[in-house]
Amino acid sequence: MEALKKKIVEEGSVIGTEIVKVDTFLNHQIDAEFLEKIGEEFKKRFADVEVNKILTVEASGIAIACAAARYFGYPPVVFAKKAAPSTMNEGFYEAEARSFTKGTISKLKVDSKFINTGDKILILDDFLASGEASVALADIVEQGGAEVVGIGAVIEKGHQGGSDRLREKGYRVESLAVIKKIEDGTITFEE
Amino acid sequence: MEALKKKIVEEGSVIGTEIVKVDTFLNHQIDAEFLEKIGEEFKKRFADVEVNKILTVEASGIAIACAAARYFGYPPVVFAKKAAPSTMNEGFYEAEARSFTKGTISKLKVDSKFINTGDKILILDDFLASGEASVALADIVEQGGAEVVGIGAVIEKGHQGGSDRLREKGYRVESLAVIKKIEDGTITFEE
Repeated sequence: MEALKKKIVEEGSVIGTEIVKVDTFLNHQIDAEFLEKIGEEFKKRFADVEVNKILTVEASGIAIACAAARYFGYPPVVFAKKAAPSTMNEGFYEAEARSFTKGTISKLKVDSKFINTGDKILILDDFLASGEASVALADIVEQGGAEVVGIGAVIEKGHQGGSDRLREKGYRVESLAVIKKIEDGTITFEE
Repeated sequence: MEALKKKIVEEGSVIGTEIVKVDTFLNHQIDAEFLEKIGEEFKKRFADVEVNKILTVEASGIAIACAAARYFGYPPVVFAKKAAPSTMNEGFYEAEARSFTKGTISKLKVDSKFINTGDKILILDDFLASGEASVALADIVEQGGAEVVGIGAVIEKGHQGGSDRLREKGYRVESLAVIKKIEDGTITFEE
């Protein structure tokens, strides 16, 4: 998605060779208008796929998933929680994921009533790096007897191997911008 | 907002006399189509107010703020973080807020580059109970030399005194559904 690559280059900043900071439009400040374009692009990429629910993880994934929901006919959006509130008092599915930027391990949780047998679930997230979060979300989907119909990421850090790992597991992966490498403060995208 | 009250009664569940669980459409599973109606209603309530930025707090506030952004002409949405990622490496504003449902104290943080002198900021959130989160967000706005032009909540628990507290401080508060009391599993709204 050319508009996205342009925005990453113009507004993003690079830390070392692994981190791209896109906090001006994606994960601290949000450009809600631009996210609608991202949502529309996800629909284009997954146009042939039946989706009856979108699953993401708090916090940055929420805006993306909601923006995409419009273009998929407003299926329910469910976001996995990193900590269970006291009101999550019944059964839930859980899977572990490591956060690359926070250096922590989160136990992602989804109330079991929101994942049902037969659900066709599209997983969307802001970043795809090692694929840890997506694997955890897919695990949760499968614990609930539902199907992962696709995994979409806004920005993929291709050199970290996450999409290869997910495709090896049989998932369809669509990333709107794939970063090949970050070197001397410059981002190179896959064509 | 009648449609909201109806949805709370039909889909919400009550825990004791203090907690209303609306995880089917607002803060775990999200009804993105309904949130657009909520966003539109916030615009009606704040139609006479100049807004150049919307501030909320992760996680549930994000979907609400982004839905509202459409109706305010897409000002930037900024969400306060409860934990600073390793990429938040410069200055930030910080204020403490207690979470009623989680029983924890969070230090809300916003990168200082996103709050600027002269900004006219609308604060939006899912719940307004004791008003702790709103007070913290307003504090952050004022640390940045910006102005709070209004505070909007989807659901107010009126008996917990938050809106009175905020109005005493001089803020304009708009809540789309105000709960008067919860008794024997039944919710009574303010008229």
